[in-house]
Amino acid sequence: MKSCLDCIPCFFDQALRASRMATDDEQVQKRVLDELGTMLRHLSLGSTPPEIGRLIYRMVKETTGNPDPFRVLKRESTQHALALYPSLKKTIIESENSLLTAIRIAIAGNVIDLGVSGSFDLDAAVRDALMMDFAICDYAAFEKYLTESRQILYIGDNAGETVFDRLLIEQMNKPVTYVVREEPVINDATAEDAVQAGIDKIATIVSSGTDAPGTIPGTCSLEFRELLDSAEFVLAKGQGNYEGLSDDNRPLFFLLKAKCRLIANDLGVTVGDIVLKGIHT
Amino acid sequence: MKSCLDCIPCFFDQALRASRMATDDEQVQKRVLDELGTMLRHLSLGSTPPEIGRLIYRMVKETTGNPDPFRVLKRESTQHALALYPSLKKTIIESENSLLTAIRIAIAGNVIDLGVSGSFDLDAAVRDALMMDFAICDYAAFEKYLTESRQILYIGDNAGETVFDRLLIEQMNKPVTYVVREEPVINDATAEDAVQAGIDKIATIVSSGTDAPGTIPGTCSLEFRELLDSAEFVLAKGQGNYEGLSDDNRPLFFLLKAKCRLIANDLGVTVGDIVLKGIHT
Repeated sequence: MKSCLDCIPCFFDQALRASRMATDDEQVQKRVLDELGTMLRHLSLGSTPPEIGRLIYRMVKETTGNPDPFRVLKRESTQHALALYPSLKKTIIESENSLLTAIRIAIAGNVIDLGVSGSFDLDAAVRDALMMDFAICDYAAFEKYLTESRQILYIGDNAGETVFDRLLIEQMNKPVTYVVREEPVINDATAEDAVQAGIDKIATIVSSGTDAPGTIPGTCSLEFRELLDSAEFVLAKGQGNYEGLSDDNRPLFFLLKAKCRLIANDLGVTVGDIVLKGIHT
Repeated sequence: MKSCLDCIPCFFDQALRASRMATDDEQVQKRVLDELGTMLRHLSLGSTPPEIGRLIYRMVKETTGNPDPFRVLKRESTQHALALYPSLKKTIIESENSLLTAIRIAIAGNVIDLGVSGSFDLDAAVRDALMMDFAICDYAAFEKYLTESRQILYIGDNAGETVFDRLLIEQMNKPVTYVVREEPVINDATAEDAVQAGIDKIATIVSSGTDAPGTIPGTCSLEFRELLDSAEFVLAKGQGNYEGLSDDNRPLFFLLKAKCRLIANDLGVTVGDIVLKGIHT
């Protein structure tokens, strides 16, 4: 999915939020925005939002001297999610369709996204996702792929959301390779975050090799690209992975909550909707 | 009121909206944002938002070659408001406190603001403003100033809102000087817009001499500054005038609907609230 002019004010919003996470110095925060202003004419809207996001968050880290501005918040998100784990596990086990409930819960976890907004209500998101209708629900195809595949490539998104992914992985009951970002970017999950969520106990954690807030195959490692090319069943969580992979030709399932108007438009849904969408499936 | 870092993403939003009004050419729209990016490091947050807005909208006009991007929309707003005039007049006359109702209606008209957002619901704003409680209501002081002053300086804000101002001016029943912007900026009212609203029939229209989307005395004409200095009773409509005059030392009444979080915070109210606030009164 390409970027558009509407992404530009949002990039400044994101850069401001990230700079405030990185430093309390207002002059440095202003310098971050000035730097982005200077970068702007060199950014091509032919790129996907995570490709541009990658350059912006690199600049934020360089300008503020803080290599992981969202570190504390990521840890808090994971702890919050871990506290919910037992009751969510019970909800899944006791529900009529445990797999679909686990999918709903994994999507609810996608609200933990500090790129799109500065705050979220995780408990409300869980309640909503358990109750609301899917705007797109390619569940039959998902179930078929799950039955027929020997293993699953699961591309994670944010720290904390990882705990919700763990619940779905446990429910799918197949060998899973769980993909994280190589470097910290926004609150996206790295290997460290996935381990804190306990993913290492139930899946093999691999890095995509990127520091982009999404999966753009061209910025990923050769190892990851080979994994992706050979995967039978790929699940990708969240908007950044959708933006990077939605124009891809391979069969893929996206699990996300639409939080941005432009992504919602691209999917033909409304902001706030929950989506399980298969492409080329 | 000074600008702050949060204003910066909003400036890009505004520049994008204005560039889209000015031209259909996406490349020119991108150029507007690039220009703003370059300007950014030279913009001081010590300035008020309308001081910066003035520079931005000047640049939009220069870059797009369109001297009045909101011209058509301004005319439509005035026509829409004029169509409501008879029923609003009746509401005022039939109400228990006609002056307060006219104030409420004048504030409702302040929703016609294309700087803050790309759209508004005028009819809903009128319904709301007639029903809702004021967050700040310095009505007793307002009434006292009205009784004791021989004439009124009324600083207008947006085209279309002018029709709502006309209803309040008619109700106040004192000689009024109605202040407009010298040059088109966003959808702010110029003399032409005020005449279209019929203000010329009931007040003397004067220009503040500025092309800023607000009243910053330093950017106004000497004539206007003298008028302001000698005025007994000053009413200023809307956010732009508040931003430019809120740190002023003279007695002033602000009539506005809070549409921006930062202005709402500055006033100690919530976004959506209606306000009749006197300072130094």
